[in-house]
Amino acid sequence: MQLQDIGEQGFLKIIQGFCPSGVVGDDGAVLAGLDHKPLVVTTDLMVEAVHFSDRTTSPMDVGWRAAAANLSDLAAMGATPIAITVGLGLRRETAVSWLEKLYQGMTACLGKVPIVGGDVVSSAVNMVAITAFGSVDPERVIRRGAAQVGDAIVITGPHGKSKAGLELLLFPDKYKILTEDPASCQDLIQAHQRPQARLDVLPFLAEFPRVAGMDSSDGLADAVCQICQASGVGAMIDRQALPIPPALFEMTDPATALDWVLYGGEDFELVLCLPWQEAQSLVQNLGQASAIIGSITAETKILLANDLPKSSGITGASGDTSLEKFSNIYLERGFQHF
Amino acid sequence: MQLQDIGEQGFLKIIQGFCPSGVVGDDGAVLAGLDHKPLVVTTDLMVEAVHFSDRTTSPMDVGWRAAAANLSDLAAMGATPIAITVGLGLRRETAVSWLEKLYQGMTACLGKVPIVGGDVVSSAVNMVAITAFGSVDPERVIRRGAAQVGDAIVITGPHGKSKAGLELLLFPDKYKILTEDPASCQDLIQAHQRPQARLDVLPFLAEFPRVAGMDSSDGLADAVCQICQASGVGAMIDRQALPIPPALFEMTDPATALDWVLYGGEDFELVLCLPWQEAQSLVQNLGQASAIIGSITAETKILLANDLPKSSGITGASGDTSLEKFSNIYLERGFQHF
Repeated sequence: MQLQDIGEQGFLKIIQGFCPSGVVGDDGAVLAGLDHKPLVVTTDLMVEAVHFSDRTTSPMDVGWRAAAANLSDLAAMGATPIAITVGLGLRRETAVSWLEKLYQGMTACLGKVPIVGGDVVSSAVNMVAITAFGSVDPERVIRRGAAQVGDAIVITGPHGKSKAGLELLLFPDKYKILTEDPASCQDLIQAHQRPQARLDVLPFLAEFPRVAGMDSSDGLADAVCQICQASGVGAMIDRQALPIPPALFEMTDPATALDWVLYGGEDFELVLCLPWQEAQSLVQNLGQASAIIGSITAETKILLANDLPKSSGITGASGDTSLEKFSNIYLERGFQHF
Repeated sequence: MQLQDIGEQGFLKIIQGFCPSGVVGDDGAVLAGLDHKPLVVTTDLMVEAVHFSDRTTSPMDVGWRAAAANLSDLAAMGATPIAITVGLGLRRETAVSWLEKLYQGMTACLGKVPIVGGDVVSSAVNMVAITAFGSVDPERVIRRGAAQVGDAIVITGPHGKSKAGLELLLFPDKYKILTEDPASCQDLIQAHQRPQARLDVLPFLAEFPRVAGMDSSDGLADAVCQICQASGVGAMIDRQALPIPPALFEMTDPATALDWVLYGGEDFELVLCLPWQEAQSLVQNLGQASAIIGSITAETKILLANDLPKSSGITGASGDTSLEKFSNIYLERGFQHF
């Protein structure tokens, strides 16, 4: 049997057999029980030809995105970054300037977070393996499995922009908006190339006794599904409450725009679940396309509703492709109660 | 300019420009200044076709060695392991059994040290990126740059066995010892396939106020050179004091045996510098092929002497290939005072 036969969930099941219970499943691992604040650790790999290529990604962007992905995982755990290590596998013929730009991109994204070590080895394909460490107060850890029925679901910013930016980079001839609205295009491309980890959100969460959630790096729909699965709950998402960046409507039809918002991925926002009153206060503080997009429900289903409030029988329209796709993600994750 | 043109030292010079001063150069990074014991972090990558291949390395051995290399880096810093994370890049057609055996090897080597997280991505070549964390008392950190003139140089165990074991695996037809002395061969192959990180040495160092050193994963000569370079000192190594495993003489001529001891690598012993009296006490405690192999000198040269004591003019015989090779490593490391 090959890895491609068992998928990511099969892989994770195997791995879990080798790890302490409870450490697989969140954006980072919390190392507690030491004589200090819990340490949060997270690792991400980026591999040439899979996650980046010279055709579409400058080395500076590779570095930026690798760092951003790790910082976002820390933010998703409620942790403040301490440092990162960088492991590199590099082809011998890699240009020295490529390496320098990679580090320039990483350090630009990292700001004051230091690179404190690493390893470099020869490899047939270039790769970047970053491990990031952060610290977190034990009562401030954000976990996927802590969502409760009745919670509001908050997104800290817009979704779909990264996917739209990638589309513009990949198919420049396809989109008239590039000449008609260059400023918006720059904004979308920036969202793709220079995503910002939402560490700035953490101070606004400090007063709340319980916040569940994760980041949306694998897509907004994926994040909602993972939170529901980990928490043993369901969700009702209000389609009307989902902010869709206006530029997306200039690029494509509304159905596709919604698709990019739900499934585009790599927006690196946080998807948080907390009581309604706190959620409203949070959105007020964050502004800037943050929103309450739905609520956590007892029934272990994810519903995509056109309008809220409605009767308890709410569900997406029959034959609704967005909802079907949502369901499929949920099912792929091995959740049987849908 | 390509990476292969600048070499590892050129690479490190570039990296240092992006890291806080003092963090590049030891086996791990010490993260101090937090509200807890300093944390030691180290990262190692192993890449298919570079560090292992199905022809010569079972997946169990890949896992064991990847874990051992990281634990050894912690031991080399004086740190007690807390946990590791495992990043994997895997070809889609990788056998699931390969993955399971990889984890079996890792966990067998790790013992009670938990795997607390990781990442898995698709890749054109299989790779294993491990980051290990340990804790260390600030006054117990072992650093390369802390050797002082007059220190004895201690190795915690024999060298050359891993290289000899690899030889036996690669060229079984070449060595009669395989049939004549299978027990010794098993010992050498074991040294190569299942190296032991010398965490057991740390308790014996607890009473010493200053211990400099590193591990010998890149070779004994390399370790001596790196310590001298980092400390701004030289060394005199007593060739007669170097323990050469007897089985090596059954495999090859004495010059080659010495070559394997000095340059074979992957023995994962510790090379430690400390005052003579403490060194003698340490060797007495460790037993088992630990030895004082020389001393730290003021002149920034590394000398390989046949006998000790001798007059101050000691140096290897002219045309001594071992010494030349030693010098070359030193020079390659950019040390100009040789």
